[in-house]
Amino acid sequence: MVLAGIDLGGTNIKAALVDGNLKLIAKSSIPTNAGRDARQIIADMAGQVISLADKAGLSRADISGVGIGIPGVAKDGNVIALHNLHWHNVALLRIFKEFLDVPVFIDNDGTVAAVYEYHLGVLAGCNVGVLLTLGTGIGGGIIIDGKPFSGAHGLGSELGHMTLIKDGLQCTCGNKGCFEVYASATALVRYGRQIVIERPESLLHHAAGGDYRSVTAKMVMDSAKDGDIIALRVIDDYSDCLATGIASIMNSLDPEVIALGGGVSAAGDFLLNKVIAAMDGKGVFAGQKYADIRIAKSGNDAGLIGAAMLAK
Amino acid sequence: MVLAGIDLGGTNIKAALVDGNLKLIAKSSIPTNAGRDARQIIADMAGQVISLADKAGLSRADISGVGIGIPGVAKDGNVIALHNLHWHNVALLRIFKEFLDVPVFIDNDGTVAAVYEYHLGVLAGCNVGVLLTLGTGIGGGIIIDGKPFSGAHGLGSELGHMTLIKDGLQCTCGNKGCFEVYASATALVRYGRQIVIERPESLLHHAAGGDYRSVTAKMVMDSAKDGDIIALRVIDDYSDCLATGIASIMNSLDPEVIALGGGVSAAGDFLLNKVIAAMDGKGVFAGQKYADIRIAKSGNDAGLIGAAMLAK
Repeated sequence: MVLAGIDLGGTNIKAALVDGNLKLIAKSSIPTNAGRDARQIIADMAGQVISLADKAGLSRADISGVGIGIPGVAKDGNVIALHNLHWHNVALLRIFKEFLDVPVFIDNDGTVAAVYEYHLGVLAGCNVGVLLTLGTGIGGGIIIDGKPFSGAHGLGSELGHMTLIKDGLQCTCGNKGCFEVYASATALVRYGRQIVIERPESLLHHAAGGDYRSVTAKMVMDSAKDGDIIALRVIDDYSDCLATGIASIMNSLDPEVIALGGGVSAAGDFLLNKVIAAMDGKGVFAGQKYADIRIAKSGNDAGLIGAAMLAK
Repeated sequence: MVLAGIDLGGTNIKAALVDGNLKLIAKSSIPTNAGRDARQIIADMAGQVISLADKAGLSRADISGVGIGIPGVAKDGNVIALHNLHWHNVALLRIFKEFLDVPVFIDNDGTVAAVYEYHLGVLAGCNVGVLLTLGTGIGGGIIIDGKPFSGAHGLGSELGHMTLIKDGLQCTCGNKGCFEVYASATALVRYGRQIVIERPESLLHHAAGGDYRSVTAKMVMDSAKDGDIIALRVIDDYSDCLATGIASIMNSLDPEVIALGGGVSAAGDFLLNKVIAAMDGKGVFAGQKYADIRIAKSGNDAGLIGAAMLAK
C-alpha cells in the first residue's frame, strides 16, 4: 500500500508518498504561487503526487489514497474557508479527483498534526487529546475516541480563537482578545520588539542588534534562557497566557494530554516547565488529575505523514 | 420498565420514578441536610426511591436502574468533587448499591440536563450539542455523537470556568475571570445591585424598593423589558459576555445547537435576541453557519427525567 500526503501552505505545496507503515518513500515541495486560480493549484497538487509516483516507479493504481492538510476549514471534501489563498467554498475533493481519481481525505492542518501525534507522537493512546500549534497563530487539533474531531460544521478546533481577554487586542479574525493574540509566536515577537525598543540594557536588545524588526520568537526565548531578566519576564507572561488558554481547554474538553507544537515549542522543557508552573491555581478542582502538558513530537515531516494518515 | 432519577442538590434531594417512555409516575423531595455524613445522605437517596416504589405498588425488582445527577464531578461511579456537600472521592455508586442494588449511573447535573435536551428538548438530533445552565454559576453539558461527553477525567464540560477575562474578577473556583463570573444569574444580580445603589432614578431601583439586597436576576430582566434604559444597558453587557463565552464554545466544540437553560433562560426570546445580536462579529469565519442558539426546553422535572435517562 502506498499513500500520499499533501501539506497545502500559503507559500509551498509539499507532498510525500509513504508506505503502509507510514515510512517516507519520497517527498517534494513546489511553490504555491498563491495568486493563481484554485484549479491550477489543485492540478499542481495532483501533479506533484503523480510525479513522485513516476519517479518511484509506481503507477497511479498503486496509490491507495491521498490525504490533504489545509490551513483552513474543510467539510465533506469542500474547502469552506482558506484565508491565505482567498479560497471560499472550493470543491477541492471533486476537482482533485479530475486529475487523480483516488480516495481523497481533507482536513485542517491542526487536525492533521493531532492525527500525527495520536499515531506516532505524544497523544498516543489518548481517548481525548488536544494539540496546539504555536506559530503565526495558534492552530488546534482535537482527537476524541481515536478520531479527529472538528465539530458539527468543521469549524471546531479553532482553539486559537477562544477568547482570552474579552474586548482585548484586535485579532486577525475580526474578533478581539483571542487566545492567539497573546500566546502565538507572533505575540512573542510583539513582546520582544517592545523590549528592544524600550530596554536598550537588555540582552535581547543586543541579540537583535538594536533593531526591533529583526526580533524572532526564538531570539526572545534564547535571551530568556541566557538569563536576560527582562526577556524572562516576557516569557513568564507569555507562559501565563498559554496556561490560561490551556485551562479553558481543560474545563471544556478535559483531555488526557495537551501537546504543544509549532515553532515556539522548539524551546522544549524551558517553555514546558514555565507553562506547567503557570497552571498552578487555574484548575477548578484542586488536587485533581488534569491533562498532562507535553511538547509535541512533530518534526519536519509531521504535516505530510499526518496528512497521509487521513487516508489510512 | 421503571427507572428512577435522582437530583442531588445542596438544599434538596429530589427523586422520581418514570416509565419506559420517560413519563413521570411519581416524585418527591426531601431536605438534603448538607452537614451530615455522606453515608446518611446516600441512604436517604436510596430510601426515597424505595419509598416512591412502595407507594406506587412496585417492588425493588421492578426498578431497572437509577440515574443520579450531582452538582459536581463524577467518574466511574465515584464523586470526585461536590463542593456544596464538601464531598471528595465519595464512592456514591458502591454505597448506594448497599441500600438498593440496581444498576446505578451518575453524572454531573449539567450533563444530565443536556441528556434531557438531547432526548426531549432542543438538542434533539444534534451530533454535537451543548447546554449552558445560567444559574448560581454556569453549568455545562456536552453531547457528542449522541452520548454525554465529560472528557478524559470527568472534569470536562465545566464550561462556566472557561476564561472570559484573564486576570479578571475572582471566581469561587479559585481562578480569575471565569465565564460564570460575568454571565451567571449571580453576575446579573451583582450588576443589578450596583444599579440600585448608584442609580436611584432607575425602574430597577424602584422595583427593588431601594434595597440592593432584594435584587433578583428576574427583577433586572423585567426592569429592562419594561424599558428601564439603565437595566437595559446591563442586559446588553450581560448578553455580550454570554455571547463571548458562546463564541469560545463555537471555536472549540462547534456544536449544532447551544441551548440556554437555568433560571436566567426564563427571560426567553428577550434574552435570546440580545445574545444572537451580540454574536455579530464574534465568529472566525464570516458568513459561515455556526451553532443555533436556543432557549432550552427544560421545565421543572428536566433534572429528574434527565437523570432517569442516564439509566435507560
